[in-house]
Amino acid sequence: MAGRLELIPLLGFPAVAPGDDLVDQIVCALQSNELSLEVGDVVVLAQKIVSKAENRYVRLAEVSVTPEAEALAKRADKDARQVQVILDESREVLRVRSGVIIVEHRNGYVHANAGIDKSNIVQVSGDPRLLLLPVDPDASARALRDGLAARTGLAPQVIINDSMGRAWRNGTLGLAIGTAGLQPLNNQVGETDMFGNVLEVTEPAVADELAAAASLVMGQAAEACPVVLARGAGLAVSDEGSASLLRDPSQDLFR
Amino acid sequence: MAGRLELIPLLGFPAVAPGDDLVDQIVCALQSNELSLEVGDVVVLAQKIVSKAENRYVRLAEVSVTPEAEALAKRADKDARQVQVILDESREVLRVRSGVIIVEHRNGYVHANAGIDKSNIVQVSGDPRLLLLPVDPDASARALRDGLAARTGLAPQVIINDSMGRAWRNGTLGLAIGTAGLQPLNNQVGETDMFGNVLEVTEPAVADELAAAASLVMGQAAEACPVVLARGAGLAVSDEGSASLLRDPSQDLFR
Repeated sequence: MAGRLELIPLLGFPAVAPGDDLVDQIVCALQSNELSLEVGDVVVLAQKIVSKAENRYVRLAEVSVTPEAEALAKRADKDARQVQVILDESREVLRVRSGVIIVEHRNGYVHANAGIDKSNIVQVSGDPRLLLLPVDPDASARALRDGLAARTGLAPQVIINDSMGRAWRNGTLGLAIGTAGLQPLNNQVGETDMFGNVLEVTEPAVADELAAAASLVMGQAAEACPVVLARGAGLAVSDEGSASLLRDPSQDLFR
Repeated sequence: MAGRLELIPLLGFPAVAPGDDLVDQIVCALQSNELSLEVGDVVVLAQKIVSKAENRYVRLAEVSVTPEAEALAKRADKDARQVQVILDESREVLRVRSGVIIVEHRNGYVHANAGIDKSNIVQVSGDPRLLLLPVDPDASARALRDGLAARTGLAPQVIINDSMGRAWRNGTLGLAIGTAGLQPLNNQVGETDMFGNVLEVTEPAVADELAAAASLVMGQAAEACPVVLARGAGLAVSDEGSASLLRDPSQDLFR
């Protein structure tokens, strides 16, 4: 079993509603899946359920549209109220094309439509709502880590992931938007490889690699499966959040 | 076990030299790890061993440097012979900064230094060599799939991965540069989500997600571990290669 990484979907996870206690739901799902936390486990949660539990819904009917959003909505061929919400969630608009507004989210990630895609539009008895990202995903991850530690006696590492597009390549990847208890980048700068060469800056973004792996499991499951337990990832323990994953815009050659 | 994804490093994999038969080495490594292929298994190989087996070494001493490479080497503060090899492997130079030349590789990926990083510089008795990417990683993957099918009676899906940097985020991810037997993008366009919304274009790049997962396992192993067996990924079978992962430059907002 040495070196194996296992990604275990928590099957039968309930639909999440505002105010739900995710810690409690995870503890129950672990039990019903006949699992208990082990040292080194990482709990990966889909952004969507964290947002739902935190009631990050915005009612479209309550959105006041500014002229800026109106104009951008025309350029992007999108609903002006949705565009307003995207702008409210963003620091900067980077690119616009039909159907897509690529922004720097207020949390720093470059993200299409500020992470609010059509599957984040929910109809509640004819009243459409948008589901925003958590206010502070690192804080959400930390609270989940602490809550699970209090309930189980063992603090798992936590990743909140979201599907994101990227430059140059088609398709989305699940990437880490919030982390707790782990070092997101495995800093190998200055280490030497097998042949004694000092390695150039090679920093595997291990939190993103694990977020991607969990996303694959979430997406391939026959039922909605928003929580995956990763066992054997071997991520270094750290109190930092996910900020180190974000490149400083001034260092980015592709903005 | 339903829905689980397991990533199993093939421990004790030998150092690979030009001309080595990777199919034979994988079959032996499966045996020594007490594994046999199952339906749906994906064999993920690090680019480096495929390149080595295919003898993709270039002797620096044999490189003739053009004035273009000389000038670019000054801009990038790199060895001019290495820059010449990077240019020879590329279609287009996209960005240059100290230490890094970001190119469109002749195979279409946007890749720092055409995938030739310092850990791909090998000293063979004082004679430095660069290790290039495989000529045609999809063909390499296909040959491995066919070879493993001939030896074991079961054709695994195959991914060749390489660590790549990206826009906007720090750190590298293992991504698929060659695939065989699988559909790299899980096309869900037009499907509906749980609430009956027709999903926007959401195409998880499942080959990249699995390549990233395998990269995590390769990188966390105590020993060099260039081959990982992925079990339970559930990737759709297809005869296509990896081309669908590459965004058409004309459709790319970040070139």
